[in-house]
Amino acid sequence: MRGRSFLALLLALLVPLSAFAAGDPLPSWNDTAPKKAIVAFVERVTKAGSPDFVPVPERVATFDNDGTLWAEQPIYFQFQFALDRVKALAPQHPEWKDTEPFNHLIAGDMKAFLAGGEKSLMSVLAVSHSGMTTDEFNRIVVDWVATAKHPKTGRPYTQMVYQPMLELLAYLRDNGFKTFIVSGGGVEFMRAFAEKVYGIPPEQVVGSQGKLKFEMREGKPVLVKLPDVQFVDDGPGKPAGIQTFIGRRPIAAFGNSDGDLQMLQWTMAGAGARFGLIVHHTDAAREWAYDRTSHIGKLDKALDAAGPAGWTVVSMKDDWNTIFPK
Amino acid sequence: MRGRSFLALLLALLVPLSAFAAGDPLPSWNDTAPKKAIVAFVERVTKAGSPDFVPVPERVATFDNDGTLWAEQPIYFQFQFALDRVKALAPQHPEWKDTEPFNHLIAGDMKAFLAGGEKSLMSVLAVSHSGMTTDEFNRIVVDWVATAKHPKTGRPYTQMVYQPMLELLAYLRDNGFKTFIVSGGGVEFMRAFAEKVYGIPPEQVVGSQGKLKFEMREGKPVLVKLPDVQFVDDGPGKPAGIQTFIGRRPIAAFGNSDGDLQMLQWTMAGAGARFGLIVHHTDAAREWAYDRTSHIGKLDKALDAAGPAGWTVVSMKDDWNTIFPK
Repeated sequence: MRGRSFLALLLALLVPLSAFAAGDPLPSWNDTAPKKAIVAFVERVTKAGSPDFVPVPERVATFDNDGTLWAEQPIYFQFQFALDRVKALAPQHPEWKDTEPFNHLIAGDMKAFLAGGEKSLMSVLAVSHSGMTTDEFNRIVVDWVATAKHPKTGRPYTQMVYQPMLELLAYLRDNGFKTFIVSGGGVEFMRAFAEKVYGIPPEQVVGSQGKLKFEMREGKPVLVKLPDVQFVDDGPGKPAGIQTFIGRRPIAAFGNSDGDLQMLQWTMAGAGARFGLIVHHTDAAREWAYDRTSHIGKLDKALDAAGPAGWTVVSMKDDWNTIFPK
Repeated sequence: MRGRSFLALLLALLVPLSAFAAGDPLPSWNDTAPKKAIVAFVERVTKAGSPDFVPVPERVATFDNDGTLWAEQPIYFQFQFALDRVKALAPQHPEWKDTEPFNHLIAGDMKAFLAGGEKSLMSVLAVSHSGMTTDEFNRIVVDWVATAKHPKTGRPYTQMVYQPMLELLAYLRDNGFKTFIVSGGGVEFMRAFAEKVYGIPPEQVVGSQGKLKFEMREGKPVLVKLPDVQFVDDGPGKPAGIQTFIGRRPIAAFGNSDGDLQMLQWTMAGAGARFGLIVHHTDAAREWAYDRTSHIGKLDKALDAAGPAGWTVVSMKDDWNTIFPK
């Protein structure tokens, strides 16, 4: 037994050294409960011989995008993209000066625009997200992402991502997880930057979709984006999107709003070790503070559900020492 | 220069030896044009420094399923599954004895059943593919696959797969390709066996889809399969499915019927090296021989397109020395 004790001592000396050598994979996370829960979960499911061991192909983790991987205030970034697109197209559409809701946008009267409700919103989404080929749309988004700046911070939108979540994505992938986006955002909008910004390839992005029409143009095949919605990947649509696109139940899910409630319920109801996490926007100084009464990223039912269900709730103010990349 | 010639001679002696040592990755393919074209394409896109080199993440290859990876005669196997399901459910539905089209199936009168056309077909698909949870449906398909036998060969359906295509899938994966199914078949039907049979994981299966409904049952979330069609992944739907599910244009596509025409066009229209292949069912002795006038797997327009477009056409009779696994 003395030999074994010596070995244990040696291991105790070596393990912290190797951990130090590898570096902390989550340096932007404070050493509070959420970080400890994440690390404990990953160790449980990756340790060979552990009763909770999960084979690599089944290590599926799904992430909401707006408010979970990047910010969503003062308005969803994809909606800002749509508004910018209307402004860019306005010179080619002189008739918009007299056409609702475009006249309000051109006049900069957001209050009048918003009074038009869902109908106005759909009009703007239609002109900004349909009528072009998929290749053209991709270029438009890539250009917008490269040039547009957030109205409050002046940062490019791709710098409005959460540094702790970038570290978490990399940490999970380093431990054999396949990381997916499962978001209410448009699937083709997100794919234009997800690989570069999050390291998530196009085939691992699940989102809302419009219908596409195959056409031959001058002997070349194109896919034209139609204004009709094919699938809305939000709320109860998220587990449906996971089932249809991925075909495996995740073992870990990350969200920030009631739109993620059903994804969390679906993920946590599977057998074996599971991990659910909600990002709670509590930091008015460094980001924004909002939850139960917010029009954007409303977090109410999912926050009530988190405690009884044992989901981890991250307070951005208390649990993250860094919000955005430096 | 003498030294260089000596090196060339040495290489000429060594290379065949190493090829022999590694084994032929496509032993069920005869040494005819299709095999040579496949190997030449893979070597072009994988050789570092080659002008046609394609980085690993972009090595996407898409495969039709029915008639390309497994047989489809005398009727699509998924339709046989649906018919078997009606028979299995009949004892619980005494009313079917007097209800069209089920009465014809129970009586074994396929002619009367088929006279009902698409309406009859949809009725059978509805009772066999909806009304249960996704977990229940998966179990039903797994059980069927484990027990059902092909009416002509007596083999399990999962032994009605094409050995040359299994070798091709493995060869492409060994060369850094990600292999996807893109099929008109139901996505959840195919996923029940695609990983085991083809080595293709659920998240790389694209297919036709029904709508899903999220529900809580006794406090547990379930997804219920509805009878409504959400997306048909066939013909012009295939490039749309590729765009929506995968988000990358394949560099190689494999099909066998006019339902694959647009997938091949879409794949081949991309920049850089591309490979398109059509499996032509020409072997009445070992499999089936059919093309332009067949009700199942009709191959007419795509066969006409293949020559001018430079797609490879495989004659099963001439180019494959083995059809089914031994």
